[in-house]
Amino acid sequence: MKKRQLLISGSYENEVYSGREKRVKKKMGEVKHLAIVKFKEGVDVEEMIKGMEKMVSQIDAVKSFVWGQDVEGPEMLTQGFTHVFEMTFVSKASLTSFLGDPIHVEFSSAFSAAIEKIVLLDFPAVVGKAPA
Amino acid sequence: MKKRQLLISGSYENEVYSGREKRVKKKMGEVKHLAIVKFKEGVDVEEMIKGMEKMVSQIDAVKSFVWGQDVEGPEMLTQGFTHVFEMTFVSKASLTSFLGDPIHVEFSSAFSAAIEKIVLLDFPAVVGKAPA
Repeated sequence: MKKRQLLISGSYENEVYSGREKRVKKKMGEVKHLAIVKFKEGVDVEEMIKGMEKMVSQIDAVKSFVWGQDVEGPEMLTQGFTHVFEMTFVSKASLTSFLGDPIHVEFSSAFSAAIEKIVLLDFPAVVGKAPA
Repeated sequence: MKKRQLLISGSYENEVYSGREKRVKKKMGEVKHLAIVKFKEGVDVEEMIKGMEKMVSQIDAVKSFVWGQDVEGPEMLTQGFTHVFEMTFVSKASLTSFLGDPIHVEFSSAFSAAIEKIVLLDFPAVVGKAPA
């Protein structure tokens, strides 16, 4: 239990989630902004990812950023999605700041034009198993 | 650049991804198993999540596990998906071991029955911005 508590920052705004289940309130810490996408045919994906890395490097509100390309999946499981982009923020306020940042807004416009489909989820990260 | 390299473990099997772009090969380290789901109506989501936490606690191959419930999203962005489950493995071999573990296979069967839809992606995690 101790390990879990150490991973939870106190900076999250509880009141935003007052209607949520206790489980979430109890364990929340960082906030994640997750996008899974399928790019349009002909898009230079490498360039798009370079642009995203540049964008997050320019915005301090983004604590960390990890991305990946699916390597395993049968279509039945991936539903045609191929790439994952996950940004981590120390608080909901940081995520809000990021979403409104002009650098992000400009990048989003180019990004939107390049994707065939997307699912976007924002969530307080609950640590179900901490790294040993 | 130094910071990035420190985050990349050498345990990944390069040959599996020999056909992939150099960018991925260069920076890969941990492997992630990501599921985004929408549960069927009437499912006891809390119980399901407890079951998942128990399952990952019983399988050493799972290095860490984070989950969350979307809090922001308009339907247009979430596509109706509500929950994210993300497990991290130190290597592709660990993920393969997890997928074949009888405890995981048994849980997956119950989990599959509880979900209306799912997207499952496995990917080597590329660190685009390391935590400061």
